[in-house]
Amino acid sequence: MIVEVIAVGTELLLGQTVNTNAARIGARLADAGLDHQHSSAVGDHPARMVAAIRLALSRADAVLICGGIGPTQDDITREAICEATGRAMAFSDEYADRLRRWWASRGREMPDSNLKQAEYPEGADLLDNPKGTAPVIRLETDDGWIFALPGVPAELEALLDLHVIPFLRDASGAGVVLSRVIRTYGESESRVGEMLADIYDEGGNPSMAFLATDGEIKVRLTAHAGSAAEAEGLVAPVEAAVKQRMGSLVFGTDDDTIERIVLDLATEHGWTIAAAESATGGMIAARITAVPGASKVFRGAIVAYHEDIKRMNLGVPAELIETHGVVSEPVAMAMADGVAAALHADVAISVTGSAGPDPLEGKAGTMVIAVHTPERTMARTVQLPGDRERVRTYTTTGALHLARLAMSGQWWTGQPKHGRWV
Amino acid sequence: MIVEVIAVGTELLLGQTVNTNAARIGARLADAGLDHQHSSAVGDHPARMVAAIRLALSRADAVLICGGIGPTQDDITREAICEATGRAMAFSDEYADRLRRWWASRGREMPDSNLKQAEYPEGADLLDNPKGTAPVIRLETDDGWIFALPGVPAELEALLDLHVIPFLRDASGAGVVLSRVIRTYGESESRVGEMLADIYDEGGNPSMAFLATDGEIKVRLTAHAGSAAEAEGLVAPVEAAVKQRMGSLVFGTDDDTIERIVLDLATEHGWTIAAAESATGGMIAARITAVPGASKVFRGAIVAYHEDIKRMNLGVPAELIETHGVVSEPVAMAMADGVAAALHADVAISVTGSAGPDPLEGKAGTMVIAVHTPERTMARTVQLPGDRERVRTYTTTGALHLARLAMSGQWWTGQPKHGRWV
Repeated sequence: MIVEVIAVGTELLLGQTVNTNAARIGARLADAGLDHQHSSAVGDHPARMVAAIRLALSRADAVLICGGIGPTQDDITREAICEATGRAMAFSDEYADRLRRWWASRGREMPDSNLKQAEYPEGADLLDNPKGTAPVIRLETDDGWIFALPGVPAELEALLDLHVIPFLRDASGAGVVLSRVIRTYGESESRVGEMLADIYDEGGNPSMAFLATDGEIKVRLTAHAGSAAEAEGLVAPVEAAVKQRMGSLVFGTDDDTIERIVLDLATEHGWTIAAAESATGGMIAARITAVPGASKVFRGAIVAYHEDIKRMNLGVPAELIETHGVVSEPVAMAMADGVAAALHADVAISVTGSAGPDPLEGKAGTMVIAVHTPERTMARTVQLPGDRERVRTYTTTGALHLARLAMSGQWWTGQPKHGRWV
Repeated sequence: MIVEVIAVGTELLLGQTVNTNAARIGARLADAGLDHQHSSAVGDHPARMVAAIRLALSRADAVLICGGIGPTQDDITREAICEATGRAMAFSDEYADRLRRWWASRGREMPDSNLKQAEYPEGADLLDNPKGTAPVIRLETDDGWIFALPGVPAELEALLDLHVIPFLRDASGAGVVLSRVIRTYGESESRVGEMLADIYDEGGNPSMAFLATDGEIKVRLTAHAGSAAEAEGLVAPVEAAVKQRMGSLVFGTDDDTIERIVLDLATEHGWTIAAAESATGGMIAARITAVPGASKVFRGAIVAYHEDIKRMNLGVPAELIETHGVVSEPVAMAMADGVAAALHADVAISVTGSAGPDPLEGKAGTMVIAVHTPERTMARTVQLPGDRERVRTYTTTGALHLARLAMSGQWWTGQPKHGRWV
C-alpha cells in the first residue's frame, strides 16, 4: 500500500516551523511496512490544498493530511477535502455534544467557533481523539483513503497509533520494512561507497544508502519482506558483509551514538572519564552529558580556554608551552594527564587548537586531540577545513572516536572524514 | 517569482532525518520576499525524482533541489535533472582538476568516484562551493531555473546566501525586502503578541511575525519598498515603538546572540567570565566559546558533573550540600563563587540541577542558576517541562540571560518563556 503525506500550514513554507510531523509519520509508516513515496507541505490556501489532495490521491492508496483541522478561520482542511472529492459538508450533532461535554468537564464554556470541529465531509467517519478536541476524519473515496489528522505532535502520534497505522496495515495486508543503520567513522563518504560498491551493485533487497553527518558516515540497509523474521534474514548477511569489509571503521548500529559507545566502553572497563577542552570549549563534555545516566561514568571537565588555566588548573608546565606552543601534541598530552589527575578520572580526552577564523600561533583549523587511559597517553594532530563551528563539531566527534579506539586498545588506525591527520 | 523546493533522500521519507533544510530554505525565501508555494520530499528513486522536477517546473519559476549531489551511487540528482529536461550529461575537466587540488591540499588522494561531482547537465553553470566538494548546479530551462544544492546544512546555508537568493532576487526584479529581527527574552510568545497587538493590527508594511526559538521570542518586521532607504524609513518607527513597549525584555537586534551580548558586556566593564556547570555539562561554555574572539574575555569553565568535583575543585562546603541538597540555590551560589576564585574570573555563571529523565534528589526539570559579579552573587530556581535536551538548552539560554541582567545591574526582572521561576 502506497501512502502519501501532506502537511498543511503556511508556517512550514515560511520556515517558521520545521516539519517534524513528516518524519514522525514517515518513521511509523516504515516500521509498519507501508510504502511512503512522496511527502509535501502546502500553505493554508484553498486551491493549492485541493490540488495537493487530488495529486496525492492520483498516485497513492491513502493520503494522510496533517494540520488545518483546528477551530480557527485559517483551518481549512475539511473544506479542501470536500472540494477535492465533491462531497458536501455535513454536521455531527453527536460530536457537537461531545465537544460541549469536553469543555464543560474542564469547567469552561465552549467558544462557538469550536463547533467547526463537528463538521465533516459527507460519508466520512469521525474517530475519537483522546488527547484533544479535533476528531480524526476518515473518508473512503474511489481513488483511495483520506485521513485528516491534527498537527499537534502529541495528538498526531497518539492518533496514528490508534486509528491510522493499524487500519492501513489491515487494509494493505502489507509486509514488513526493516531498516538497519551501520555507523562508521574514519573514511570519506566516497571511499565508503567504493569499499562497498560490489555489495551496493547486488542491490535490490535490502537496498543500500549512504548518509554523512558531522564527520560520520552511515550505511543504511532497507529490506522489504513478508515477516519480521524474513526481513531480518535478508538484512543479516548483507550487514555482516558490510561490517566485515569495513572492520574497525564500524563503531555501532542504529541508535548507537559515539558518546554512548564511549560511556559503555568505560562502564565495561570500570573506568571513569574526564575532559580538558580548549578550542572545543565544553562541546565534548556537553555531548557526553547529553546521554542519560552519564553521571555514573563521567566525572567532569575543565574548559581551559585561557592559557593560565592550562598551567594553573591542569598543571601543564610553562616550559612545555614555551617550547612547543600551546597548539601542540606535548601540551595536549599534558592536558589529558593533568585533568585525569585533577578530577580523579581513569580516562581523559583533551583538545587544544585553533578553531579560527583568527589564527592562533599562526594556525587556523589545526586541532590536537589527546587521550589518556590507564595504559598510555597519545596525541594526534588534525587539520580541518571549514568555519569555526564546523571545525569544533568535527573535532568533538573525532575526539570521541579516538577515545573509543584508545579504550578498545586500537591506536589511531582510522582517518578523519574531513581534513587529515598531520 | 514563485520558488519551489524539492528535498531529496529516502531517509526523509523513512523519518530517519527531519527535513530541516526545507525550513532553512523557506525562511530565506520569505526574508527575500520570494513566493514559496510548495515544498516536497522525494526518495532516491529516478522516476519519482524526474516526475517531481517536471511537476515543480510546471508550477514554479525556479526549483531548488536539495541533496543527491554527493559522490556515491545513490546520489542521482544530476541524472534526474538530465532526464527531466532532456539534457545530456557533460563533464567539466576544470572542475575535476579543482576536486583533485581540493583533496591534494588535504594530503589525501581523491577516490575516483568523486569525479562524479564534475558531471553536470549540458548547459548548466557550476558554481563554486567554498565549504565542500559538490558545486552548485544552475540550469536555465524553458520552464524556469533549476538549482541543485548539497543537503549538508552548513554548505546549503552558505550556498543559498552566495549563489541562490541574490540571483533569484535579481531575476525577479523584486524591490527591496528589509527584515529586522528584535530579539526578546522573558515573556511567552502569546504575551509578546498581546503586548504588541495594536502595532500588529496596523499591519501591512512592515508586517510583523513572532518566532519562538530555544526560549527566546523574536519579533520580525519585514518591509517591502523600492529602495533600501525607503525600507529603512518604514521599519525604523515600528522598531522604535516595539522596543519602547518591550523595554528590558529586548536584548538585541538581528544577529545579536545572547552569548555575544554577554561577552560585549564583560568587555565594556573590563571583566572576565567563567562558568561552573553541572546539569548543563559544558553547554554554557560551548555557547560562549562559539563566538570568535571569546578568548579575550572568557577564562574557562569547570564541568562539575560528579558531586566530588563540586567539593574538591569548586570548594563547595560538604555541609552546604548535606543541608540543602546539591540542587539548591546555596550550592549554585557557592559553585559560582568557587569557579570565580578557581579560574580568577570577575563574573561566573553556574548551574546545578536535574535535567531528567531520572530524578535527582526526587526532582526532574528543576534547574538552579547562579551568577557571581564583583558586586554580588544571586541565584534563581527554574522548573522546566520537556525532555533532557530541551531542559538543558533552555537552562543554558536562561543562564546567559540572567548573566546579562546581572552584568547590567538588573536582577531577575524577567521570566523564562517556558517553565517558571520557583
